[in-house]
Amino acid sequence: MEEVVGLIKEDLDKLEISIDKLLTTRVTFIKDVVHHIIKSGGKRIRPILVILSSKLCGYQGAGHLPYAAIVEFIHTSTLLHDDVVDNAETRRGRATANTVWGNESSVLVGDFLFSKSFDLMVQGSDEEILKVMSKATTELAEGEILELLKTSDVKTSEEEYFEVIAYKTAVLLSAACEIGALLGRVDEKKRGALRDFGFHVGMAFQLTDDLLDYTSSGSTLGKGAGRDLKEGKVTLPLIHAIQFADDRERETIEAVLMKKRVTRKDFREVLGIIDKYEGLEYTARLSKEHIDNAKALLRDFPESIYKKALLDLATYIIERSA
Amino acid sequence: MEEVVGLIKEDLDKLEISIDKLLTTRVTFIKDVVHHIIKSGGKRIRPILVILSSKLCGYQGAGHLPYAAIVEFIHTSTLLHDDVVDNAETRRGRATANTVWGNESSVLVGDFLFSKSFDLMVQGSDEEILKVMSKATTELAEGEILELLKTSDVKTSEEEYFEVIAYKTAVLLSAACEIGALLGRVDEKKRGALRDFGFHVGMAFQLTDDLLDYTSSGSTLGKGAGRDLKEGKVTLPLIHAIQFADDRERETIEAVLMKKRVTRKDFREVLGIIDKYEGLEYTARLSKEHIDNAKALLRDFPESIYKKALLDLATYIIERSA
Repeated sequence: MEEVVGLIKEDLDKLEISIDKLLTTRVTFIKDVVHHIIKSGGKRIRPILVILSSKLCGYQGAGHLPYAAIVEFIHTSTLLHDDVVDNAETRRGRATANTVWGNESSVLVGDFLFSKSFDLMVQGSDEEILKVMSKATTELAEGEILELLKTSDVKTSEEEYFEVIAYKTAVLLSAACEIGALLGRVDEKKRGALRDFGFHVGMAFQLTDDLLDYTSSGSTLGKGAGRDLKEGKVTLPLIHAIQFADDRERETIEAVLMKKRVTRKDFREVLGIIDKYEGLEYTARLSKEHIDNAKALLRDFPESIYKKALLDLATYIIERSA
Repeated sequence: MEEVVGLIKEDLDKLEISIDKLLTTRVTFIKDVVHHIIKSGGKRIRPILVILSSKLCGYQGAGHLPYAAIVEFIHTSTLLHDDVVDNAETRRGRATANTVWGNESSVLVGDFLFSKSFDLMVQGSDEEILKVMSKATTELAEGEILELLKTSDVKTSEEEYFEVIAYKTAVLLSAACEIGALLGRVDEKKRGALRDFGFHVGMAFQLTDDLLDYTSSGSTLGKGAGRDLKEGKVTLPLIHAIQFADDRERETIEAVLMKKRVTRKDFREVLGIIDKYEGLEYTARLSKEHIDNAKALLRDFPESIYKKALLDLATYIIERSA
């Protein structure tokens, strides 16, 4: 990942300036809230995808940076609302905006960021990009609602889970890559390949997140392992285990999912069942498959430092420990 | 108002069909939540402004109805979030969506509606309308945040209050009228006149709402008088009274604004102070001034049934009792 970041260091520095510059508002407080979350050490995966995809497609201008910033704004807006929905107290080891300023501020500043993103894109006047992004954000909202409806539902199927993560995560990464293709004006086939590349990377990204939620220690992921279980999120490691679990094990899982306070002991017990049926290995295997699919999609692009960087980024997505 | 509604009855019926037809989603639950709030007896002021403005400007097509529906979607999206921010339990005499389905659903379905609105507008491909709407929604979010920051602030000035209501309310009504002008392809001067007409109508609309909050009985406004006071919203009737109040009266108001539970007695006491300094009359006077300004702005439009309807609507805005 250091290599990838090194390759586009200049652009990433400019991205931070873009983020600050585009965030104009008459209300200083908005900047404080956005700053708190957007400058808290996010990995900038989505902007990096915009930058690398546009470079891969031969784009030479500077128009990719505002779009990279906007994609991060939209992501940040969803984080602000997610933290309200999940009642989250920390993110990346810091107090969430809703903890510091209240749920009201998180909801409304998220709304502002989202509106501002569209306002900036409309000024950009690229109709195709607008179409891609408005479709992606609508699907993203649907994904978040599907996830909410499946909360604590022990009967959640693999298919339902895949639908949730496709919409809540993969479509935005897919859109980020498609923006690069649109800026580089490549043909439909390459545009489709990049869109699908982003989608598979997005699926692997969420699968890995859901896996790490069961394996990471508090310090690495900055949110403590077991957060999904606490929030009643039924993710693939658990879904896989439930499929094979006996009645007693299934009852145990169900009881923990319904609990208001999940203890360390509860978490270890559920993790034990997941381990028994190799839920983490299964999740890692599917994640790897998505990354293999993603990589194969780049075959028609000529070799370049940017293609190598996208392939490296894809590998990083599943090999990271945070 | 019955006359106005009668004049465009056919369009208003088609609007309801548009609302249902445009609300496509793979998630049925979203439709349930939106239906609950959007079909709960709202007055459709914003769609009516889109319809009448477009007709005033000679627009003959059917493209105004999707925009009328979209403006109502955006308004509905802000209501869903407002109810979360205000912890509101009822709206128009019915349980709020957040009471029925939880704050999480209201936040996420609001996000969906907002995204969907932009998705529909992007498909509409009218760049000017997109610019007007993305600017308006961004300002709307700023207005909501400004209002939140002023909660329970006894020092709120008239200017600050005007800024809040301009952004949180007037800009969207202004945009609704501007859409009509854009659809009718009138010149810049008429476009500006309609934009300003909508703005002044919007200011009067919010001023009247804030006045009615002190005067309406529970049944008329469907939310009970005194809701603003309970929520710590410092509106013009109160701001005016505070300017003239003596120290003891000001302390009374301040104490009530800080209270977690505002009683009937508290409300009556504050209303007594407002009455003493004629805060309601002052608010009604300013409201009337905005409507007079609005009406004057239509002078360059030739007489027509639609012009008369817009003037009647403006009168209704300040004469309504709910």
